[in-house]
Order: sequence, then structure tokens, then C-alpha cells
Amino acid sequence: MTEYYLEDFSLGQQFESASYPVDEASIKGFAAEFDPQPFHLDEAAAKGTLFQGLAASGWNTAAITMKLMVEGPFKPVGGLIGAGIDELSWPQPVRPGDVLTAVTEVLEKRQSKSRPERGIMKIRTTTYNQRREVVQTYVASMVVQTRPQ
Amino acid sequence: MTEYYLEDFSLGQQFESASYPVDEASIKGFAAEFDPQPFHLDEAAAKGTLFQGLAASGWNTAAITMKLMVEGPFKPVGGLIGAGIDELSWPQPVRPGDVLTAVTEVLEKRQSKSRPERGIMKIRTTTYNQRREVVQTYVASMVVQTRPQ
Repeated sequence: MTEYYLEDFSLGQQFESASYPVDEASIKGFAAEFDPQPFHLDEAAAKGTLFQGLAASGWNTAAITMKLMVEGPFKPVGGLIGAGIDELSWPQPVRPGDVLTAVTEVLEKRQSKSRPERGIMKIRTTTYNQRREVVQTYVASMVVQTRPQ
Repeated sequence: MTEYYLEDFSLGQQFESASYPVDEASIKGFAAEFDPQPFHLDEAAAKGTLFQGLAASGWNTAAITMKLMVEGPFKPVGGLIGAGIDELSWPQPVRPGDVLTAVTEVLEKRQSKSRPERGIMKIRTTTYNQRREVVQTYVASMVVQTRPQ
């Protein structure tokens, strides 16, 4: 796939990933390793919680989104290197059987004054389920290389 | 360990987790599943990148931090439920051999007007390596139950 220097991206440009099916085993496996709370581990225990049923850890959704991005068409030269994240939220829970897709939009970009070989680009990445409901959104500042002069 | 209602937390209160050793296999395993980029997967390939050596995915550090929090002394009644995250950044890379610890500080809290049985509490969670360098920091809005009247 095409790799992009900072100059090659345009504001408003959007990149849509392939899709990722989420199953009960992967939700529970991630939770057992990193977020061992009842609503991520056990269907029965999850019923009586705020989630009202088994739901993926938000960090699991964030990790799946990263995989979709790395394997998708949004390809800065040198890779996806995040400098920081803001406005990360999970408006809807991710459930077993959901199929996730991530869309990345270019919001802003600027070349570094002190290091002209790179710049910072702000993107919004939104993760959808199969009903096109938003399950996660964030704004990321990415380190992107500029085209060698 | 003690569980806390919203009323039980005080501003400025800090909670420090146990520690988590990071090894090469866990960095590469997470990367293979969720962030398959050369600087997270292969020591030799990582040398020529911005990271100058193998480094954990930022989402791996975030997931490890969640595990430290879930198993640590910061225990709202009903569990750790994040409504959103801001100012997430990774000031230093996490390397094989690092040992991580997370410290959570209470920044703000307020009861919900529409749903008095819960509130939102802002916390800052900072993750340190064994040299007490910050490897990750964020501000989270947590949903926390109020004490039943």
C-alpha cells in the first residue's frame, strides 16, 4: 500500500480499515491478562453491573483499533507513532459477536520548527460496530516524517 | 482491600500499585496480536527507528497499567469503569526488563445531578519504570457509585 509523508496527507482525508470480529474468548482472554473485572470475564456476573452483560475492556477495544489501523490504508512513512491521545471515550460497549471497523480522519498537520524532518499530525480515529454505532473515539497526535528535501 | 464510595475519596489522595515486570516475550506477543510494527516486534529492525531499540506498544503499557490498577488499592465500589481519557501520553519508551508501577491520584469529584446514585471522579494515573521515569500518564473520568442513603 502507499506510504505517506506529512505533505501527502490532506485535511479531512479519511482512511477506513478492514473489519475485526470480536468473540467471547478474545474478550475474556484480554481481560484475564490485563483487566480482570467481572463485567469483562463472566457473563453471569456482568448481568448485574453497569454493563448489563459481558463487555470488552476499553483497552481491548483500543488495542483492536490499533491492529486495524496498522493493517489498514492509513500508512505514514516510518509507521504509526503516537505522541499522545485526547478525548478517548467508549460510548457503547463492545459485545461478543461484534465486528469492528476503524475510520481515521486527518484533522490538522504542522511541520516541526526545531526538527524539520518531521511533523505532528492530529487525527480522529473512530471505531464502529456492525450497526455503525460508535464504540470508541479519540484524537491522536502522530509523529509523521516530512519528505526528504 | 477496602472499597470506596465517591464520598470516601479525598482530593489529592494517592494510591500506588504493586509492580509489573515487562519482558521481551510479552512486548512481542502483545505487538504480534495488536500492534505489529517493527519497533515493537524485532530488536534489529527497531534499531533504525525513532525508538532506537525494541519498545512496547503504548497500548501494551496502557493495558499493563490497567492490570496494576485493578489489582491495586484504588478500589471504587463496583469496579474501575472509565467514562473517558484525556492527556494520554508516553514520555519514555518501555523496554524489555523494565518494571512498571502505577500511581493514581484523585483530582476532582462530583455527584451526578440526574443520577444521584453515582458521580464522576477525575483521576491522574502515572506509570513509572524502575528508575522512576514516567512512561505513561493520563487523566481519566471514572464512574463511581455514591453511598446508598
